[in-house]
Amino acid sequence: MKIIVTKDYEEMSQISAQIVLSKMYTNKRVNMALTAGNTPARMYEIMKEFMAERTYFKNVHFYNFDEIGIEGEQYGLTMRSLNEQLYCPCMIQKENIHELTPTNYDNYDKKIVEDGGLDLILVGIGADGHFCGNLPEYTKFEKETYPILLEETDANFQLLYKLIGKKPTGATVTFGPRTVLNAKQIVLFANGEHKADIIAQALEGPVTTAVPSSVLKLHPNFIVVLDQAAASKLTLYK
Amino acid sequence: MKIIVTKDYEEMSQISAQIVLSKMYTNKRVNMALTAGNTPARMYEIMKEFMAERTYFKNVHFYNFDEIGIEGEQYGLTMRSLNEQLYCPCMIQKENIHELTPTNYDNYDKKIVEDGGLDLILVGIGADGHFCGNLPEYTKFEKETYPILLEETDANFQLLYKLIGKKPTGATVTFGPRTVLNAKQIVLFANGEHKADIIAQALEGPVTTAVPSSVLKLHPNFIVVLDQAAASKLTLYK
Amino acid sequence: MKIIVTKDYEEMSQISAQIVLSKMYTNKRVNMALTAGNTPARMYEIMKEFMAERTYFKNVHFYNFDEIGIEGEQYGLTMRSLNEQLYCPCMIQKENIHELTPTNYDNYDKKIVEDGGLDLILVGIGADGHFCGNLPEYTKFEKETYPILLEETDANFQLLYKLIGKKPTGATVTFGPRTVLNAKQIVLFANGEHKADIIAQALEGPVTTAVPSSVLKLHPNFIVVLDQAAASKLTLYK
Amino acid sequence: MKIIVTKDYEEMSQISAQIVLSKMYTNKRVNMALTAGNTPARMYEIMKEFMAERTYFKNVHFYNFDEIGIEGEQYGLTMRSLNEQLYCPCMIQKENIHELTPTNYDNYDKKIVEDGGLDLILVGIGADGHFCGNLPEYTKFEKETYPILLEETDANFQLLYKLIGKKPTGATVTFGPRTVLNAKQIVLFANGEHKADIIAQALEGPVTTAVPSSVLKLHPNFIVVLDQAAASKLTLYK
Repeated sequence: MKIIVTKDYEEMSQISAQIVLSKMYTNKRVNMALTAGNTPARMYEIMKEFMAERTYFKNVHFYNFDEIGIEGEQYGLTMRSLNEQLYCPCMIQKENIHELTPTNYDNYDKKIVEDGGLDLILVGIGADGHFCGNLPEYTKFEKETYPILLEETDANFQLLYKLIGKKPTGATVTFGPRTVLNAKQIVLFANGEHKADIIAQALEGPVTTAVPSSVLKLHPNFIVVLDQAAASKLTLYK
Repeated sequence: MKIIVTKDYEEMSQISAQIVLSKMYTNKRVNMALTAGNTPARMYEIMKEFMAERTYFKNVHFYNFDEIGIEGEQYGLTMRSLNEQLYCPCMIQKENIHELTPTNYDNYDKKIVEDGGLDLILVGIGADGHFCGNLPEYTKFEKETYPILLEETDANFQLLYKLIGKKPTGATVTFGPRTVLNAKQIVLFANGEHKADIIAQALEGPVTTAVPSSVLKLHPNFIVVLDQAAASKLTLYK
Repeated sequence: MKIIVTKDYEEMSQISAQIVLSKMYTNKRVNMALTAGNTPARMYEIMKEFMAERTYFKNVHFYNFDEIGIEGEQYGLTMRSLNEQLYCPCMIQKENIHELTPTNYDNYDKKIVEDGGLDLILVGIGADGHFCGNLPEYTKFEKETYPILLEETDANFQLLYKLIGKKPTGATVTFGPRTVLNAKQIVLFANGEHKADIIAQALEGPVTTAVPSSVLKLHPNFIVVLDQAAASKLTLYK
Repeated sequence: MKIIVTKDYEEMSQISAQIVLSKMYTNKRVNMALTAGNTPARMYEIMKEFMAERTYFKNVHFYNFDEIGIEGEQYGLTMRSLNEQLYCPCMIQKENIHELTPTNYDNYDKKIVEDGGLDLILVGIGADGHFCGNLPEYTKFEKETYPILLEETDANFQLLYKLIGKKPTGATVTFGPRTVLNAKQIVLFANGEHKADIIAQALEGPVTTAVPSSVLKLHPNFIVVLDQAAASKLTLYK
């Protein structure tokens, strides 16, 4: 585990972009799974400057690491975000996007292996310690890609309904911990004071399904990029 | 995880020797931690054929992954075995042997990183699921190299006393799960029907400290070499 | 460059088999280009013992690094040999064999890149210093896969005609030096006194197209496996 | 070979900095040899923003790839430049700087191997095609680190005298092509119209000692970062 504590969100985004972009500058096929959401917003802006209208990224392939179906929509929640934040602005071609959906998940780990494995996976961390769709307690570390059932009476279902304004289709799917840990490199980034507690637990506390991202520190090639606020409860600050 | 099911102990030993030896044929420094004990006995005989009196292994460095001190002895139990099975027959030079002892363990993970990291660690599995000195329940997955206290009233102390005919010094030390999982490649081997149950639990069951070696399957570069008897309770046989 | 000097042809074959086999024991796709001919004959016998009737090599893919068409035959000279020596005895499945032919060569380097690159290429050396189909003086180091024209009046054409008893189709094709040097690892093996002079020139002499295999020593991950006779003119023996 | 054609010197510097910096964000030892001179001037400014006053680069080690002694000076020409451009502004600690000098060169390749090999070497290209101190015609591709004799009557001696205003000590030393090609990754960068001809020759012409950097394209992990002017004579523009 390598912990990089940056000054602020801007530097966290710059360094994350450096790591992701520099993996792409190669003449070999590269397979990446990058998170959607708020944390990478600035990183994707930086990446766009170096990727849009370029012709030398044909070797780079993208995999979404989770998905939530939405009633009556072509794309799920994650793919919609990735299209907006990454695939469209950076002009990624269709044939370089390998969509994980709630219906094709059961063969997805095998597909990744046949494609040569993931070179890099970039994840955020929830305030509850989740990464990808691996929720506290519910998660099993030995799982590969798996579905999470969402019933209408479920709190998560209601939360998503409110969030996206449309009904989720009742099924979500996520890379399991084992799929993530099977990547050649894992990057975790986080910013803000509200992440400080969970970062300290995940990086310095016990490996436990109560904090799913606590398992990431077992990976031999794991980089953590934090701003000072998110790092503020680590013992390295005391 | 790649599972190799071999015909018998001989083939398990041949394939393990192939994996270990072929890592050594390089012009770069190579760092290895290999198990002592019964399982590797035949493997070390094969390795001896290809290593004794050779001059081209100066780039290969060896690390013992655990140790138990013995009263009045220069070497602990593990180093004594490794000297007999590997270092002496294969003519490894002193400067290529990096001894872990119950007294130098606290700086050992840092030393490994500075030496370039472990390229390969080869471990066996106990019938209780332990690997290296990581005992069921007692183990914490987030640990690096750590000491295990043995008091005279302790069952493990008595067991070792009986086994080696001399008093252990009361302290043993082992690579923690995190030290092991930080290696670039992990190989686990096992043979015999008495290992069949624990192999099935470790490879196909939940990741749990009740079966410490269950965590190894999270590593991105993990190879398992089994004879048919040890593999007989895996679902791939059903 | 790492030079391994073995006792004899048997040990050269054992060590070459160790290197090739141990690359295959992984859960990732592996791409290999292995030589046909006399030098690997014993190596392939050893590999057969560890590969025939096994089900765990589905991740391993094979590429032939040259080919000579034969009039009225389905397979060229190289594929015929590889089928006999490797693909049939080791029971490699059709979908894991990626045939290079005199007609598909112009897209073959691109195909290799898309397949993830070659993990290992194993080559022999001709008494004239050629490797694959890269002939002295004729070779250009900057070439990727290319055709060599054989006209009926040509000495090489006549030589091949005599050798195989049928007319070559007039075209042969080979990985160029650049295709070979683009692999992650290169292994060169040789045995016998008649190879001693060219081995000394290739490994210790200037990099020159007069000895095409002299360029291989520039590769960052290059292993040479020799018997004592083939190594006898190296300065390391003086 | 991967060619990245950037808009301008600024983007060339940004991308080069991304590649160099992202290699450093790891918990393993990293060994780098970076060029001094005009081409990296802006890159080093960018690197300084991300390196000065940081405590997490203790794992990164630096090697200078050539040196010219100066009469009566502690440091040679290259080390003086690297101190000014990189080591001082980025606050690299003494123990992480491995100085190559005209007197310690003969053991330097062995030292690099023992240190774990170079992870990255970043080179510029001279208008005459030289890289490091490998001069046209004079260079031998099979050379490791070697001295170049400079006599007072020599044109190069006079050139350097004029350039630095002090007498060179008559000896210069450089990584040979083989030392450079033995690195895990090579990056070449260049900007400006005056480099366009030599870039086209080096990247698309024959491998020849008349253009020493023409040999770099044989490396399996070779990245070229150019501005549009330097790339303007490549056929990819036609």
